[in-house]
Amino acid sequence: MARFLRGAWYVAAWAEEVTRALLPRTLLDEPVLLFRKQDGSVAVLADSCPHRFAPLHMGKLIGDTVECGYHGLCFDAAGHCVANPHGNHVVPSRANVRAYPVIERHSLVWIWMGEAERADPELVPDLAYLTASGRRTVTGGMTMAAHYEILTDNLMDPSHARFLHSKYLDNDGDVTLKTTQEGGTVYARQWLPDRKAPGFFAGCLPDDPEKVDMWIEFIWQAPALLHNSTGVTCVGEPRSEGIEQIGTHLLTPETELSTHYFYANSRSFRLDDASMDDRVRQWFHDAFVLEDKVMAEAIQRRMKNATDLLKMDPVLLSIDAASVRVRRHLAGLIEAEMALPAQASPL
Amino acid sequence: MARFLRGAWYVAAWAEEVTRALLPRTLLDEPVLLFRKQDGSVAVLADSCPHRFAPLHMGKLIGDTVECGYHGLCFDAAGHCVANPHGNHVVPSRANVRAYPVIERHSLVWIWMGEAERADPELVPDLAYLTASGRRTVTGGMTMAAHYEILTDNLMDPSHARFLHSKYLDNDGDVTLKTTQEGGTVYARQWLPDRKAPGFFAGCLPDDPEKVDMWIEFIWQAPALLHNSTGVTCVGEPRSEGIEQIGTHLLTPETELSTHYFYANSRSFRLDDASMDDRVRQWFHDAFVLEDKVMAEAIQRRMKNATDLLKMDPVLLSIDAASVRVRRHLAGLIEAEMALPAQASPL
Amino acid sequence: MARFLRGAWYVAAWAEEVTRALLPRTLLDEPVLLFRKQDGSVAVLADSCPHRFAPLHMGKLIGDTVECGYHGLCFDAAGHCVANPHGNHVVPSRANVRAYPVIERHSLVWIWMGEAERADPELVPDLAYLTASGRRTVTGGMTMAAHYEILTDNLMDPSHARFLHSKYLDNDGDVTLKTTQEGGTVYARQWLPDRKAPGFFAGCLPDDPEKVDMWIEFIWQAPALLHNSTGVTCVGEPRSEGIEQIGTHLLTPETELSTHYFYANSRSFRLDDASMDDRVRQWFHDAFVLEDKVMAEAIQRRMKNATDLLKMDPVLLSIDAASVRVRRHLAGLIEAEMALPAQASPL
Repeated sequence: MARFLRGAWYVAAWAEEVTRALLPRTLLDEPVLLFRKQDGSVAVLADSCPHRFAPLHMGKLIGDTVECGYHGLCFDAAGHCVANPHGNHVVPSRANVRAYPVIERHSLVWIWMGEAERADPELVPDLAYLTASGRRTVTGGMTMAAHYEILTDNLMDPSHARFLHSKYLDNDGDVTLKTTQEGGTVYARQWLPDRKAPGFFAGCLPDDPEKVDMWIEFIWQAPALLHNSTGVTCVGEPRSEGIEQIGTHLLTPETELSTHYFYANSRSFRLDDASMDDRVRQWFHDAFVLEDKVMAEAIQRRMKNATDLLKMDPVLLSIDAASVRVRRHLAGLIEAEMALPAQASPL
Repeated sequence: MARFLRGAWYVAAWAEEVTRALLPRTLLDEPVLLFRKQDGSVAVLADSCPHRFAPLHMGKLIGDTVECGYHGLCFDAAGHCVANPHGNHVVPSRANVRAYPVIERHSLVWIWMGEAERADPELVPDLAYLTASGRRTVTGGMTMAAHYEILTDNLMDPSHARFLHSKYLDNDGDVTLKTTQEGGTVYARQWLPDRKAPGFFAGCLPDDPEKVDMWIEFIWQAPALLHNSTGVTCVGEPRSEGIEQIGTHLLTPETELSTHYFYANSRSFRLDDASMDDRVRQWFHDAFVLEDKVMAEAIQRRMKNATDLLKMDPVLLSIDAASVRVRRHLAGLIEAEMALPAQASPL
Repeated sequence: MARFLRGAWYVAAWAEEVTRALLPRTLLDEPVLLFRKQDGSVAVLADSCPHRFAPLHMGKLIGDTVECGYHGLCFDAAGHCVANPHGNHVVPSRANVRAYPVIERHSLVWIWMGEAERADPELVPDLAYLTASGRRTVTGGMTMAAHYEILTDNLMDPSHARFLHSKYLDNDGDVTLKTTQEGGTVYARQWLPDRKAPGFFAGCLPDDPEKVDMWIEFIWQAPALLHNSTGVTCVGEPRSEGIEQIGTHLLTPETELSTHYFYANSRSFRLDDASMDDRVRQWFHDAFVLEDKVMAEAIQRRMKNATDLLKMDPVLLSIDAASVRVRRHLAGLIEAEMALPAQASPL
């Protein structure tokens, strides 16, 4: 069985994806079903009828209950079977499906795949910037055929951009990557003084200077929730005088060998400029879809069905400090969870 | 190795499918080859040359012998190698292929995949109605990516129609399903009094009554041979005054996870009405192909590679009485067959 | 792990396939990368960066070094990492990729997948006819989903042509196949006197005789390097008075269950006749692609994932003398190689 960290909030969907139409999705190797109740809140159920294992998303949403499309058993949003249309109409006591703790916050739907009692809403990471006034956020998403940690590696190592995304970045000089950790949060920070601004920021600073100081800071939290602050300021000026965008990168394993990648870009400048939205979407397409995804999937193929890169004896470079720290931290969390008493195991 | 009941007649093909062209098909995980001999009778051989394992269907039928397309070994309809075109032309003593007992009856070709000595033609089920005068029969077939018992479950449980085929049936009231067994035959009977006739029968009773009494009776025999009598009569009138169609559902495993489904509809009314044939074919397409097949394959995916539903601890309902009885009876037959002395094992 | 003969020269590519563009190819289950250095010579590296296993062919060729497309590690043609653009720029001592001995000769690129110290250029088979003046050579290639020895069987048994390629050959009489072995070379020779010339040779002999004497001689060397001399002469005349073409058949395992097939036809007549080239290409397409490939892949499917035909207890015929001899000889070479001391194992 796949070793995922279960006691953690994962992104199940962008909020706008969840409607009154039954939405099937596989998360951590478990098929689930998302829908919006009549009061607008989100429910998530296991997508498998306990009777004959028909996928419940092939049924109907009636009020706040899901009717199985095969034999009509009805389940409420808590997963309790509330109607059996057959025989004496008695509902079998075992006829329930798992309901998952779920929270909608800042345009995202978060799901807890571990023991429900441990699902603490306080643990949902604070991504308030996604919906904050004074910001403009563009979102996207895709599924890629690679273990999610290959993507984490990619993100915690901004130095790959110079090679993999060389068309868009002009950072040909040396870069120092500073890795730090505070509790369960790992930071990878780059400071790139006195260089040409990448195309994304072109023309966005007042007076459009030829050279800028630039920063890239990636922040990771378990299990695979990342965001980055990237900005430019005039050479020698403080960051507070510059402009910044926050990149969001939320990874949820679909299976051991595939990953849902939810991403966003939130900028604090040119809020009403639709051409900036286009610039963001072009970047998503060119860098994420055509470069990061292609590379991650190629690496997964080279790793065959393996998922633990560190067990494959890779040559490590200085730029791996952050990603190795993240991998070790996450491995420790998974080890600790597996050592919990049996009742803590949700399955 | 897959656990099929081997000592049983299975449908290999509709008779009209078997011609002078070599027809390859996989049955119970064994590739076979069907053809019609010069006298019009059907022969079935293993579809693998014992020399280099070339599929024999890639060769030629010459008279009643099959010439391998790779090196020209010739096999007669009994599977004996009768010609070696090479060297001293001596036929190696082991150069035979398995020939399967086969019977053509009532438009179907039946094959016996177990020990040939036990192949008793009396055991072929009597489906004389398929070719009886006074009836009109429309046939069809498909292969689906699901274990055959998922289909048996589906058929022995007519109550699924109310949900899965709700577009075509208007049986929204309660239905009593009566399950009985006589020897190796299991019956699932429904009586649905005083309701709107399903579209299939619309306009077929004299005077076209708004409400009818209706019956649905499914009959199962091992390994997975089913037919059903479904009919309507005017409310309060005896069945003999009504009209009836017989549905035929003959399941032959292709592999453990896929099934050949041969189906037919034989009606005793409007024999010469081509629009009734169209109505039948539309039902085959809409209900069998677009609904039953899609559901069965979705369930198989949920079961992953498992095939024994009862081992997966399903919640059972009253409507499962017939299908569970069928599963247990068949499991008993397979157990008994596996306990037979070794010589009874055909492979 | 697949049991290939490793200490042997295999064809990696036709020389013209290898250019300044990085060419990825899987050989003996190992992904490699081929390119041409600035001096025109060919280099072959493992196609996997030791840092994060990015395929190196996704990077760039800069001079004679390959820059990884993910993080910019640079490797020279000997596989040594020569540049690390990160941190203190120190190249980690383990950061090398395997470089394979390679030889370009007579329009082919040969690779040695075993212990490099044993790679003796003298062992490359002499296929000088491929580029000899006085000959015209047409080449081709494909990959087929079958173990390479199924192809070897096919080639060392010319008698299959009478059945599988019957459209092109009219050899309906008996043929004696003479098998001999000299050291590690196995010969399968046929002499077919007084018969109609196959279409390939039609009109090529002076006076275009109705009947000819014909010979077909296949020559095998380990691991799976074959060529054949096929020719016709006027009935009763010596071979030296006739015309001949040499067929080349070089098999390199891609994986255990797929094979790169490099083939050529070198004729000593009608050198400047483009219609003869077309005739050759039609033969490649009709016989190799549409018949041999289809048959080999069908046999592999019948063998499922097995690769050792002799373990499957086939019925053997006189025509198998050469192919069985080849299989046993090769099995002996692989056994002997596996018995070598550990340092002889390249992986």
